Amino acid sequence: MLPKPLQNLIDSFSRLPSIGPKTAERLSFYLLKETDQNIKLFAQALSSLKSNLFFCTTCFNIDEKSPCRICEDDKRNKNIICVLENPLDLISIEKSGIFKGQYHVLNGVLSPIDGIGPNDLKINELIARIDKNTQEIILALNPSMEGEATSQYIKSKIDTLGLKVQVTRIARGLPTGSNIEYADEVTIQNALEGRRNL
Amino acid sequence: MLPKPLQNLIDSFSRLPSIGPKTAERLSFYLLKETDQNIKLFAQALSSLKSNLFFCTTCFNIDEKSPCRICEDDKRNKNIICVLENPLDLISIEKSGIFKGQYHVLNGVLSPIDGIGPNDLKINELIARIDKNTQEIILALNPSMEGEATSQYIKSKIDTLGLKVQVTRIARGLPTGSNIEYADEVTIQNALEGRRNL
Repeated sequence: MLPKPLQNLIDSFSRLPSIGPKTAERLSFYLLKETDQNIKLFAQALSSLKSNLFFCTTCFNIDEKSPCRICEDDKRNKNIICVLENPLDLISIEKSGIFKGQYHVLNGVLSPIDGIGPNDLKINELIARIDKNTQEIILALNPSMEGEATSQYIKSKIDTLGLKVQVTRIARGLPTGSNIEYADEVTIQNALEGRRNL
Repeated sequence: MLPKPLQNLIDSFSRLPSIGPKTAERLSFYLLKETDQNIKLFAQALSSLKSNLFFCTTCFNIDEKSPCRICEDDKRNKNIICVLENPLDLISIEKSGIFKGQYHVLNGVLSPIDGIGPNDLKINELIARIDKNTQEIILALNPSMEGEATSQYIKSKIDTLGLKVQVTRIARGLPTGSNIEYADEVTIQNALEGRRNL
């Protein structure tokens, strides 16, 4: 029923996560009214997306060159490595401006249900980066079951290999602006256990 | 901070309605993992969107040719015209399979706040389509203030010109599966006023 050029675009939008068929329709019809220039920019951005992006061979972040700009930055501390699930987490942490060390992006977490084991992640590559200068590995994985299991796996792997490096995990507790009244039990428990002297 | 090819794509997604900066980021990162083939299809769908689509010069629906397939379909009743706000509404009605007449897409509704007057819509073109064979004009505009005002405007214009044609409006009432308990006052009022003999 729908004209083919429109249906093709709707199909492409529908393949994206969190975009249902109705939203895909709405976005496609919106683009019909958009300027030719903006549609051209969109199509170009898609076409050139992968051709100009690389996974950094050191930290597995995505950048226009490898090694990435963070790994090449001499002003950053080379002896602290913050371990992340994906590049979006890296952007969040960089935006905070708090951390000035290195990163290591696992590109996923252990998830037996989805068939993702240790060899599907960049865990061996992380272990290989640890040398006698490395002071600390900060595990900054999401506070989920999978993130927790992955953190434990990395910690035990480092211990088994007898590597002398401090392994820490980012704090759990109440986020700024939240409400104790509405916090779940695990968060409350984490917040109490992680209490600090004032 | 973000690599440029990625930022370009995020910018393009951000320009779409209902896509915020966070969603735009997520969609762009998702596409990084998508197959080259699917990304290419997406880019092609965008590039060829407008070049192969036309507004039907009769009903102002969007199709691959003008006049559109609906206007050219000899099996459809030429004497009933259903007036719609936009082509998405046409798709919804066609999907129901109930209506077998002609359409007329206004491409908007009267909205003084947005500076949209009668001459910005395809109202004159609708009036021009009414001839001695036209039996009925069904106004199927959205039940909003603007839709209501537009319906009234078209009705009064037809009356002023002394055109002999029945003008109807699609029914207001409770949608299937809804709950009287949660219905708003105007819907209840419309449902009561529009009651029918069983």
